[in-house]
Amino acid sequence: MKVRVGIVGCGVVGTGVVELLIKNGSLISKKTGAHIELSKVADRDWQRPRAFEVPQHLRTTDYRQVLENSDIVVELVGGKDFAKNLIIEAIEKGKHVITANKHLLAEEGHEIFKKAQEKGLCVGFEASVGGGIPIIKAIRESLVGNNIRAVYGILNGTTNYILTRMLQEDVNFEEALKEAQEKGYAEADPSLDIDGWDSAHKIAILSFIAFGGFFPFSHVYVEGIRHIDLLDVELGKELGYTLKLLAIAKRRDESLEVRVHPTFLPEDDPLAKVSDVFNAIMVEGDFVGKTMFYGRGAGSHPTASAVVSDIVDVARRVLCGQRVDWEERTYSLSNNFYSRYYLRFDVPDKPGVLASIARVLADQQISIASVLQKEKVCKLAGREGKHIVPLVILTHKAYEGSMRKALEEVKNLPVVVGKPVVIRVEEEAE
Amino acid sequence: MKVRVGIVGCGVVGTGVVELLIKNGSLISKKTGAHIELSKVADRDWQRPRAFEVPQHLRTTDYRQVLENSDIVVELVGGKDFAKNLIIEAIEKGKHVITANKHLLAEEGHEIFKKAQEKGLCVGFEASVGGGIPIIKAIRESLVGNNIRAVYGILNGTTNYILTRMLQEDVNFEEALKEAQEKGYAEADPSLDIDGWDSAHKIAILSFIAFGGFFPFSHVYVEGIRHIDLLDVELGKELGYTLKLLAIAKRRDESLEVRVHPTFLPEDDPLAKVSDVFNAIMVEGDFVGKTMFYGRGAGSHPTASAVVSDIVDVARRVLCGQRVDWEERTYSLSNNFYSRYYLRFDVPDKPGVLASIARVLADQQISIASVLQKEKVCKLAGREGKHIVPLVILTHKAYEGSMRKALEEVKNLPVVVGKPVVIRVEEEAE
Repeated sequence: MKVRVGIVGCGVVGTGVVELLIKNGSLISKKTGAHIELSKVADRDWQRPRAFEVPQHLRTTDYRQVLENSDIVVELVGGKDFAKNLIIEAIEKGKHVITANKHLLAEEGHEIFKKAQEKGLCVGFEASVGGGIPIIKAIRESLVGNNIRAVYGILNGTTNYILTRMLQEDVNFEEALKEAQEKGYAEADPSLDIDGWDSAHKIAILSFIAFGGFFPFSHVYVEGIRHIDLLDVELGKELGYTLKLLAIAKRRDESLEVRVHPTFLPEDDPLAKVSDVFNAIMVEGDFVGKTMFYGRGAGSHPTASAVVSDIVDVARRVLCGQRVDWEERTYSLSNNFYSRYYLRFDVPDKPGVLASIARVLADQQISIASVLQKEKVCKLAGREGKHIVPLVILTHKAYEGSMRKALEEVKNLPVVVGKPVVIRVEEEAE
Repeated sequence: MKVRVGIVGCGVVGTGVVELLIKNGSLISKKTGAHIELSKVADRDWQRPRAFEVPQHLRTTDYRQVLENSDIVVELVGGKDFAKNLIIEAIEKGKHVITANKHLLAEEGHEIFKKAQEKGLCVGFEASVGGGIPIIKAIRESLVGNNIRAVYGILNGTTNYILTRMLQEDVNFEEALKEAQEKGYAEADPSLDIDGWDSAHKIAILSFIAFGGFFPFSHVYVEGIRHIDLLDVELGKELGYTLKLLAIAKRRDESLEVRVHPTFLPEDDPLAKVSDVFNAIMVEGDFVGKTMFYGRGAGSHPTASAVVSDIVDVARRVLCGQRVDWEERTYSLSNNFYSRYYLRFDVPDKPGVLASIARVLADQQISIASVLQKEKVCKLAGREGKHIVPLVILTHKAYEGSMRKALEEVKNLPVVVGKPVVIRVEEEAE
């Protein structure tokens, strides 16, 4: 079986795909019987330096050259409008599509998948989540016998690097971000990563396939790590927790929770141990239990590995007309999360403070698991000598709605200085 | 598409598969369009208690009933002779086969795969390695674009539980084994697990698919954990290493190393953090880099999840006549491993001892990385008051052949008491 593959967008990932197909093409033929022929590679700028030289005869600046000469079109331009038009045009021309465009799929995946399904075509997107980690295929094929209960993990390497540095080296957010930028792990404008949007796009895509349905991306709860105070990382550590930016999708009965936020994990949780720029995703199914997938979540070569696994899959299916089945179902997302909470209140070191806060929580049926109040932890700038101490309360599981009400009440207590810090805790045992 | 599935052998895993197909069958149809019909389930004894009741009309004591009424035959009887004959008979009758029989596949997989290939049939064996962890599909399909350099991991839950207990609770091997038996993690006769054979079967199967070829199973180097002294677990910990029973398959140029032995890993290695009965497998490819797969390596439900993913895959292929391609290639295994070593010598606390051992190592071109000698570590029974201390030497990478020669020489040194302890160290940096 032979299949012609064209690429639109020859940046870091596109170049990696070209390199992989040229270097390992005959190995792939030997392993699978699929002969993959690179047809054309389109890019607007062939002058910019690349880590691998794309052969002259493959290069074009006209994406239509790719559409005309390929059975499979790999979209690696990124962005939304041009990419979407390209994909729709390719599908209308009867081409299978492979894309790493998480932003586009998270927001408009429903339309694209539907269109492809009508035409009996495949859309491969293994590379859109977790770089080389084969999480899409694992959920769709390997865990096909399971009712998936939850998918959650560390889906963004930049933020994981920053949080790892804060935890291990006691540096604050700004310093850790600067380091990440110096090492090339964070963009000059890092907001897509640090404000949680990149993770949110990825968890939306994982939710679609894990739960077989769609929801508007704008309903996903997204909170980044920009506001994280080193003090909370350290207090959490003292309590046995590690702070991670977690992307979480859970089914409770017929409703879904899909959310991205800083999260404390018990330090012996496998996800807590995933450090630096690595990604890891935990999947919970009713039969498989918990299974975790770990690796580099980005980079030219790992992402190329994922694109090529899709190419081979599509190549195999091209010949037998097999396609992916999507359930037509729309979920509404619940905002009334059910979680444990870490709360920090800055309070004067006076009697009666804990009692008044505990009363407010009790009124909302929120049960306290443990309390940490220390005489002097505030070695951090700006906090010395104010007779203000941090009071940390860990709650048992509570509803987000109740928690929000309680926090409104707490704001009215004269003893609490500034805004309380709220960090959700993912922990199995109560 | 509809496919009839029969099961031979209704023990713990077989019962799990029946339960999964009955509980989640309609979910699977919805997800994939495949309608899986349980045809017959054969077992010799329908009186023994099972966690799930197999419907009366599916039960038979005659495996031929299964062969006659199924498109896919799931072999879950275990053992070698009957299982092999059953599989061969099924293939000859034109049935696809799914098996979790690692022992059989490791020793006679070549013959079985060849036979199936001649007939254009599939053999699924996801459940033979790592329980519900989808490692077979990951290597074969998701990482298809990669030249695999190495596959290694913790493939046996029993031994990982024992080593975890030794490390965390300072109990010796016998106590930890007894605990494992009490918890049902180890068999009454635990030798298949603790002597490394179970891990060896699994790494042989992973080698076949990672490197696309075969070798005689008897050439695999296998060393278990029965002889592990708590003292070495503790000295290793002090040096920053965690002891694991690792199964390793590595390609160096055109030769393979396939081996199972106790191994020190740096304590921050992701595999070092895999504790209790969990399994994890690291795969290194030229494009994907390192990627790790983690989960429960055994148990009725996780293993059933793997069997069912194979059933669905075969069901899909039944209809399009697709099959798995095996490269016809036979590897010879290298025994001249290239590794770092942890060496412990029991020696008198006298001058000149280190010098004479170091001389022997130097003669074999083995370079010392670090040395640990302590005045008093021997709180363990039998070692007190003998003026004998442990001398630990960590080497740089060296060839196994040179190491064996050096150890022969060391035996002749009058200063060394008893047999030296040799544990290999897997570590990236030199």
